[in-house]
Amino acid sequence: MNVTIRGRTRHYRTVSFDVAANSVVLIEQRLLPHEFALVKTTSFRDTARAITDMIVRGAGAIGATAAYGFAQGVRAFRGSSQEKFFRHCDLVYQTLKAARPTAVDPVNAMNQIRATIQSGQSVAEQQVLALAAAEEFAQDDVRHCEQLGQHGAKLIRSGMNILTHCNAGWLAFVDVGSATAPLYTAQTQGKKFNVYCDETRPRSQGATLTAWELAQQGIPHQIIADNAAGHLMQRGKIDLVIVGSDRTLGRTGEVANKIGTYTKAVLARRHGIPFYVAIPLSTIDWKLRSGFEIPIEERHESEVLGAWGVVADPGARVGGPIPNQAGQPTGRRAYIRVANPDSPGYNPGFDVTPPELITGIITPAGIFKPKELWRRRHQLGGDG
Amino acid sequence: MNVTIRGRTRHYRTVSFDVAANSVVLIEQRLLPHEFALVKTTSFRDTARAITDMIVRGAGAIGATAAYGFAQGVRAFRGSSQEKFFRHCDLVYQTLKAARPTAVDPVNAMNQIRATIQSGQSVAEQQVLALAAAEEFAQDDVRHCEQLGQHGAKLIRSGMNILTHCNAGWLAFVDVGSATAPLYTAQTQGKKFNVYCDETRPRSQGATLTAWELAQQGIPHQIIADNAAGHLMQRGKIDLVIVGSDRTLGRTGEVANKIGTYTKAVLARRHGIPFYVAIPLSTIDWKLRSGFEIPIEERHESEVLGAWGVVADPGARVGGPIPNQAGQPTGRRAYIRVANPDSPGYNPGFDVTPPELITGIITPAGIFKPKELWRRRHQLGGDG
Repeated sequence: MNVTIRGRTRHYRTVSFDVAANSVVLIEQRLLPHEFALVKTTSFRDTARAITDMIVRGAGAIGATAAYGFAQGVRAFRGSSQEKFFRHCDLVYQTLKAARPTAVDPVNAMNQIRATIQSGQSVAEQQVLALAAAEEFAQDDVRHCEQLGQHGAKLIRSGMNILTHCNAGWLAFVDVGSATAPLYTAQTQGKKFNVYCDETRPRSQGATLTAWELAQQGIPHQIIADNAAGHLMQRGKIDLVIVGSDRTLGRTGEVANKIGTYTKAVLARRHGIPFYVAIPLSTIDWKLRSGFEIPIEERHESEVLGAWGVVADPGARVGGPIPNQAGQPTGRRAYIRVANPDSPGYNPGFDVTPPELITGIITPAGIFKPKELWRRRHQLGGDG
Repeated sequence: MNVTIRGRTRHYRTVSFDVAANSVVLIEQRLLPHEFALVKTTSFRDTARAITDMIVRGAGAIGATAAYGFAQGVRAFRGSSQEKFFRHCDLVYQTLKAARPTAVDPVNAMNQIRATIQSGQSVAEQQVLALAAAEEFAQDDVRHCEQLGQHGAKLIRSGMNILTHCNAGWLAFVDVGSATAPLYTAQTQGKKFNVYCDETRPRSQGATLTAWELAQQGIPHQIIADNAAGHLMQRGKIDLVIVGSDRTLGRTGEVANKIGTYTKAVLARRHGIPFYVAIPLSTIDWKLRSGFEIPIEERHESEVLGAWGVVADPGARVGGPIPNQAGQPTGRRAYIRVANPDSPGYNPGFDVTPPELITGIITPAGIFKPKELWRRRHQLGGDG
């Protein structure tokens, strides 16, 4: 999507590849929204580190990073011995797999590349095929998000107020995003609408990443406290809710997503507001039989007991009417403890929304009722 | 309630009076929870400033502060001329009234003192009566909270998990608090229970003030993101919700309280969890005919776009696994901008919960259904 820096607008993907430098190019997401920078990894080990260190995050984005990182490693091999080449490929594969051990996307992505290069007759040919397959993987990710956007944009009319939670934006994919895709497509169709971004405590991905994305794309939006959505719905100020999902159960239609998603679904139901979940098909879990089987990660209490940000100038618009303590250096990133120092926190990272609260699931193949997924599993890739 | 500093436990009230020094003694609430300090105001003007500057906040607490501040001003008068004395009293009254112009508690409190001193025969006698009346006002505030606690504690059984939102604790009153009163009473009855404190963004009164209070009283508790309560309810981990209220409509049973209260009520209803509101009778508004008439304050966006806290040590428990930037001085209060610098915020401060979501209203006079208030208005002070 577009990013404007010092008045110049350019198109960026979250993940791309510099062929001449044999380098994976990543947006350094840990600096956002306060700083925009690209990172070029110098080797497959460097790419693995970038995944581990969270320079890149989001299912689609780390899948593509592993795909490119695999090609990068494969292309760095010097020699023509097939045996040594395959040993090298295995090292690259294992290194990138170990970068985020619980994630499934890097593995799926690399399996796809590995299958493709089998048809090559020489190391040189296999190296060419690896890069082509990685580019295809990334391109597929973009195309799926675009298809999802086409379907989802039909739900958006001019004048609407749309609520989002967390970030399932283009930064979590190669481009376009899932929950944000309908917004970007609707914008290109000339529709005018407003987005309320839940700040999404404790990690504030709504206030940081989603708000940054929408600002860059010029979509009007306001950041609200997670507490405020119920009041806005009561006053008729929200017409549509779109969220992403970390895992959707194909058998039951249950949706696991960032903590707080369930609350928004309950509120939307009470107010008769349509509640949609936007997902690429790769997010569907066809195996689990109940949402209670989804492990809910309990994250470190420091996230809920404090906050990350940039120390803001006293009196500046950024700091508003809250004066900062004199002498505190501003513009530097800091973690602050907000909560009582003696108190523990409890910090579940995700929750599960039942299908009866979900109006529809927006996918690249169309919009479906949650309970429809299982019946259509052959069409949706669930027969594997 | 009790406060422990360097191993020594002492009883403090939020507001008290030092007779010898003719000084109002306040807990400096702006430093909590990171620092505990008392402030002694030197004159009624100084006391008015303490109200304006938010050293003290909360309906009951500022009522008592104004009552004591009025007595402080009255006692500072030198001379015996009744005419000059009454002019002086009026100056004190107007100064303290102007300290927080929209609040009704300081005015009600001072009217009560002013009525009492009419019966004095001399300036000296009137000065004595003023202090006695102020002490009585503060004592009434404590007694009402204790009565409320006695009624509310009947709802609490050992083993329960109780959810709270924001701070309607003893820091908002002279002592004991409203929403916290049932907790403190149940504790003295030997009941063992656990409290989940909603952090209550954007101002985080749950994570700061309520958590501090509970830690001081030794009540087990965990701070959670406002997003987490729905998930906890789904998993059967919340048995009871108790919140406070800024204004309860006697005619309709609608409750205005800190933003996010309505959301908790909706979630509690879905899960069949009892949802109670604890209030002193002075909070009941017998005039308004609909919750839509309650003005919802829209507060400055900087609250939702950032956070206040203390820069935490890298690697310390306080900072957890999130490393702070090297060179950032720790232990100093700072405001940080969390959100995207280009994005606006929208920050409504309160919401309104309809009576059908409220199991009961806990008052010093007993627990009532929201719709019962109007029928019992003569008993509850609504005939004035």
